[in-house]
Amino acid sequence: MKIHVIAPVTTAGLGAAPDVHTVDDCEVTHSTIATGPASIESEYEVALALPGTIAAALEAKAEGADAIVINCMCDPGLAALREALTIPVVGAGQASYHVASMLAHSFAVLVAEAREIPIYENNAKIYGLASKLRSVRSIDIPVLDLAADPDRVVDALYRESLAAIEGDRADALVLGCTGMQGCDVRLRARLDDAGYAGVPLVEPVSAAIALARAFVDLHLAHSKRTYPLPPAKAIVGFDIGGTRAPV
Amino acid sequence: MKIHVIAPVTTAGLGAAPDVHTVDDCEVTHSTIATGPASIESEYEVALALPGTIAAALEAKAEGADAIVINCMCDPGLAALREALTIPVVGAGQASYHVASMLAHSFAVLVAEAREIPIYENNAKIYGLASKLRSVRSIDIPVLDLAADPDRVVDALYRESLAAIEGDRADALVLGCTGMQGCDVRLRARLDDAGYAGVPLVEPVSAAIALARAFVDLHLAHSKRTYPLPPAKAIVGFDIGGTRAPV
Amino acid sequence: MKIHVIAPVTTAGLGAAPDVHTVDDCEVTHSTIATGPASIESEYEVALALPGTIAAALEAKAEGADAIVINCMCDPGLAALREALTIPVVGAGQASYHVASMLAHSFAVLVAEAREIPIYENNAKIYGLASKLRSVRSIDIPVLDLAADPDRVVDALYRESLAAIEGDRADALVLGCTGMQGCDVRLRARLDDAGYAGVPLVEPVSAAIALARAFVDLHLAHSKRTYPLPPAKAIVGFDIGGTRAPV
Amino acid sequence: MKIHVIAPVTTAGLGAAPDVHTVDDCEVTHSTIATGPASIESEYEVALALPGTIAAALEAKAEGADAIVINCMCDPGLAALREALTIPVVGAGQASYHVASMLAHSFAVLVAEAREIPIYENNAKIYGLASKLRSVRSIDIPVLDLAADPDRVVDALYRESLAAIEGDRADALVLGCTGMQGCDVRLRARLDDAGYAGVPLVEPVSAAIALARAFVDLHLAHSKRTYPLPPAKAIVGFDIGGTRAPV
Amino acid sequence: MKIHVIAPVTTAGLGAAPDVHTVDDCEVTHSTIATGPASIESEYEVALALPGTIAAALEAKAEGADAIVINCMCDPGLAALREALTIPVVGAGQASYHVASMLAHSFAVLVAEAREIPIYENNAKIYGLASKLRSVRSIDIPVLDLAADPDRVVDALYRESLAAIEGDRADALVLGCTGMQGCDVRLRARLDDAGYAGVPLVEPVSAAIALARAFVDLHLAHSKRTYPLPPAKAIVGFDIGGTRAPV
Amino acid sequence: MKIHVIAPVTTAGLGAAPDVHTVDDCEVTHSTIATGPASIESEYEVALALPGTIAAALEAKAEGADAIVINCMCDPGLAALREALTIPVVGAGQASYHVASMLAHSFAVLVAEAREIPIYENNAKIYGLASKLRSVRSIDIPVLDLAADPDRVVDALYRESLAAIEGDRADALVLGCTGMQGCDVRLRARLDDAGYAGVPLVEPVSAAIALARAFVDLHLAHSKRTYPLPPAKAIVGFDIGGTRAPV
Repeated sequence: MKIHVIAPVTTAGLGAAPDVHTVDDCEVTHSTIATGPASIESEYEVALALPGTIAAALEAKAEGADAIVINCMCDPGLAALREALTIPVVGAGQASYHVASMLAHSFAVLVAEAREIPIYENNAKIYGLASKLRSVRSIDIPVLDLAADPDRVVDALYRESLAAIEGDRADALVLGCTGMQGCDVRLRARLDDAGYAGVPLVEPVSAAIALARAFVDLHLAHSKRTYPLPPAKAIVGFDIGGTRAPV
Repeated sequence: MKIHVIAPVTTAGLGAAPDVHTVDDCEVTHSTIATGPASIESEYEVALALPGTIAAALEAKAEGADAIVINCMCDPGLAALREALTIPVVGAGQASYHVASMLAHSFAVLVAEAREIPIYENNAKIYGLASKLRSVRSIDIPVLDLAADPDRVVDALYRESLAAIEGDRADALVLGCTGMQGCDVRLRARLDDAGYAGVPLVEPVSAAIALARAFVDLHLAHSKRTYPLPPAKAIVGFDIGGTRAPV
Repeated sequence: MKIHVIAPVTTAGLGAAPDVHTVDDCEVTHSTIATGPASIESEYEVALALPGTIAAALEAKAEGADAIVINCMCDPGLAALREALTIPVVGAGQASYHVASMLAHSFAVLVAEAREIPIYENNAKIYGLASKLRSVRSIDIPVLDLAADPDRVVDALYRESLAAIEGDRADALVLGCTGMQGCDVRLRARLDDAGYAGVPLVEPVSAAIALARAFVDLHLAHSKRTYPLPPAKAIVGFDIGGTRAPV
Repeated sequence: MKIHVIAPVTTAGLGAAPDVHTVDDCEVTHSTIATGPASIESEYEVALALPGTIAAALEAKAEGADAIVINCMCDPGLAALREALTIPVVGAGQASYHVASMLAHSFAVLVAEAREIPIYENNAKIYGLASKLRSVRSIDIPVLDLAADPDRVVDALYRESLAAIEGDRADALVLGCTGMQGCDVRLRARLDDAGYAGVPLVEPVSAAIALARAFVDLHLAHSKRTYPLPPAKAIVGFDIGGTRAPV
Repeated sequence: MKIHVIAPVTTAGLGAAPDVHTVDDCEVTHSTIATGPASIESEYEVALALPGTIAAALEAKAEGADAIVINCMCDPGLAALREALTIPVVGAGQASYHVASMLAHSFAVLVAEAREIPIYENNAKIYGLASKLRSVRSIDIPVLDLAADPDRVVDALYRESLAAIEGDRADALVLGCTGMQGCDVRLRARLDDAGYAGVPLVEPVSAAIALARAFVDLHLAHSKRTYPLPPAKAIVGFDIGGTRAPV
Repeated sequence: MKIHVIAPVTTAGLGAAPDVHTVDDCEVTHSTIATGPASIESEYEVALALPGTIAAALEAKAEGADAIVINCMCDPGLAALREALTIPVVGAGQASYHVASMLAHSFAVLVAEAREIPIYENNAKIYGLASKLRSVRSIDIPVLDLAADPDRVVDALYRESLAAIEGDRADALVLGCTGMQGCDVRLRARLDDAGYAGVPLVEPVSAAIALARAFVDLHLAHSKRTYPLPPAKAIVGFDIGGTRAPV
């Protein structure tokens, strides 16, 4: 089984390193996109990431991927890719929201910047999980600065985790930026030490890969009633799909 | 006051003709986009319409527009443009949903194809109006075929209008594709003749222009807490905004 | 176009002064009611304001009004007047809630007294906007005292505005009493100075007038399926409408 | 214990006969109102029933009532009376919705005319029970005609009951007009004969009286935080309460 | 009329003493269960209380009870007993939630331990009352310790009551553990002294008995469409019902 | 990895055969329970299945299971087992609802009997997925009769599938009884032939096993804030856990 993970940004290394999640019977490959933003923390950047993400996904499919994972909590292009493809397409945001909802009465998401909160709350409404999402809490550190000072990031994540658990009554946590990967192990240790070992901490890319693998195992993919193939139609300026409908 | 209407498609003439909505104290100009799909009836096409729509909006702003209207019921790029701009940006979908909600206990939307229903229902959830939306009903005619046989379109709209009013208990109707413009007058007449003169029929582009004008009059624009200016950041492959944040 | 604004209270001058909102192509007239309370801050006062408000609206219609605005955030008589009339009837509450919902991810309302909070929250449920309303915050100053000490009112509004923005994550504000008119300019300046220029502040009477004008322009009025004409029927003790159905 | 039932209409005999509900330890008295409509089936009539209903309730309180029941499914004046009084005030609509919700997974209401449906659905939203209300079904017979042809009324109620149970999956029924009293026994028999003995049929006035009695027994009344005493204030044209606050 | 109250625990005296609620025309008897937990504060204990509760209810029915009350806020076995019986079965949780919802715009529940909060919130969702429930607040004292130090319990209840009223804007309170009986009188006095006489405090067992009595008076019981008789079927290990369906 | 599947019924062979789901790196074992009902289609049977299900789960844990799956769509004991255990416990109902929700805009569940509909709808509310569940449709065949006439079962499932897809606009289907296993392959083929190959059909036990495996892989289990260990306490009549808290 081959699962391909697309980081919908042009910054190499943002998100997972290529070899992190590969497991015995399942090859996990990674790529970034050729055109688009350096990182995503706005709807504007989501918009300009979409053509590159679609191109990367069609290419991965052509190279034999059995499933696609979008490595960004905003799930850019999730619906568009599901229309264009029949293999499972899984978003890190949708996957982690559902995993947290299955494991706990309520959950919170820890984001890089407050400006992303409306995007996350809107997605929870669309995914049907607004009643499970207690809060989206920001650590107020831009995505591209996350790697520079991991200590500060982990400190801030820990502070907001406590506020989410005790103040907002969130019973599970979602690491709300795929750029926070690596912090999950340290945050987990901090939470365990503080007596919160029983609070699940969902790392979204791992969760998305695990669900993609489950869907392939179950011979299930997204509904083509919800996500029908786009009609064959001229699309000026984009080679991807060109004047033909994609597959 | 200058309101600029962008049809986020490459097909000239789809949506309003340039001079339709111009009124005395308010100049209404129209454009299509340079890159993107011929028409929009999928999330895939929404995605590929976004860069062209952003470019067109930034250009309109540079040329002195006081407000922007997105002439498509899917409201492609509504959030992205609101981030990039401080002048009011109004989507035909959001505007018509709110107008119908203000005028009636419940409403229905009449769409070109059933494949669009999830998009419309998801937008109603985000706009907060899901409890007012009784149904989205399809006439099963592709957008690019709407112009070819207006009689068939009006017949189908009338049939679905009756089903929405009597079957779904929708007390107002929204013409759910900006490509149906022109049909509203004929559908209105059919509904009046059938005893449904009291059921509002909202034509979305007119509604969006009227609201844009109201916002300019009221010196109001969208919240920059919800839609903050995108951070200055490299965006590969798109001249629009370049490495600088837009305004 | 003639828009008539009814302040559903017997206190002359409460609400807008007669000439405030008149604009070139649109004549805006104002009146109070002959019977009813001096001001409205309870359901009891809403109840006793209704006969006078209905009488005033029927009279305004007879004198040629093209639309009616109810100048009170509780929207007293909104449904009753819409049943009795076919010209647009717009409530300051419903109009301002929708304007704020269109412009922001969430909003808060600033009211005179805490006792009004259930009324405002119930209206948000009926208008379908409960998911957008973050909070209703009180300045704890009775309506009839608002005019006496504007400095105190503006201070209190500013304090609750900050709490709504920072504490409740409201991204837009609605001035929740039409008796606060005039305070909006000063509150706007205070918010701008504090770095909240991007947070819309909706003044409800202006918003209602702008929407009434938009509805007249669009040839739209409320649904007569939701608000059918009341049946002809004896109504003891009220000349208004008498034994005949109103128009 | 004395419970006073107010039919908020001027038609003597509409609603319960004076002696119907009196039980051993609880005296149940009935009255109509002096000013207002002959019957209620619109928001307009609700509005004009309010002053008379308030006057009747204050009088009943002065004469020693321990609780007030509003004998109309629209619950006209429920909030206003609760503000004005500290003894329990129970609405036939609210009481019957809650009784049906406690007894079944879902319920339907059978109304006289379709024009009342928005009023009933809005009340369900305010009472918090919208998720339990499957449908409001109309028998299309005006309230004042209900007494003229009981056979036709019972036939229509039976027909809509079956549609509600089988079509809408309503597991309990509420007789949706207090003017339908007397029909409940015959409808109950028809449902029993048809195999629906297990479907509760709630007669709203009886349900409201039973709840009023329960509240008095429990020494409970409505919250004065939700329904605080109206402020002392001039109210022109109404003797009730006059310039003093009521009690 | 005979109402039988089952405390679904094996601890004699937990919940109401046998003679507390007996009133003139209505005999109220009490029992505990033969198998199950000493007290209930988890889903695990709810599960192991069910067989004993079913046995006790079937026995009470055989001995002539006209209605059954479950004396526990978790409402263990409410649906199972309603399937097995045709006489009214009332849960202390459901009854008190509905009473509070009828009397106030919003309410809060005061529980023994935070671990119960998800159970209470889930029940509010099922009962349809989630929008009325502002908060569930814990006094952090285990159920079996409640009797040991009533002063501490009342102090804690008072502290959380103030937080619920002022902080969460709850306009009514529900005593959230039937083991807190007796504290209601003292808490009521404390609230009255503090100026909160207008905030209803619902004691759940009394409320449930009053509603059970009302249902018997109204000749109403739960819907057998929602709660049909269980099919005749072998049930290994439980004499109750045995291989026959119960009645 | 060892996943243990408990069919919470006493009928051997109901649900999955022991060897169906075993895959290379994951051993899947199956058991039924010693005390309880022959099958589950009521809340009464759920109640009497719980002690046996708890005993079976504690035993499986003692024998080295890494995760537990409850093989019944009603998810009997899901919360109780999660309290008692720290290894992942997955219910077939919760798992299949979430899988369907992730893959489609909306879904429907196909159940054996209409009497189960309230149970399924209530679970959807608790799981937070009520807005995604379009309908629960019954084939009206008792669970224990499912095996007798597979042709009739598949015919009925196919008929209700079409009604769910075309009538209720469900974009994914869930096989709503674990006793329908084996029918999924034949139903899938029928749907494919009818042009509905794009509609996912979720077989719940497989889905639950796949998710259990994913949780173990991710080192995640349910939140112990939502599901804390039950307090040590006397539980009369049940050896399981005895007077000690389980682990």
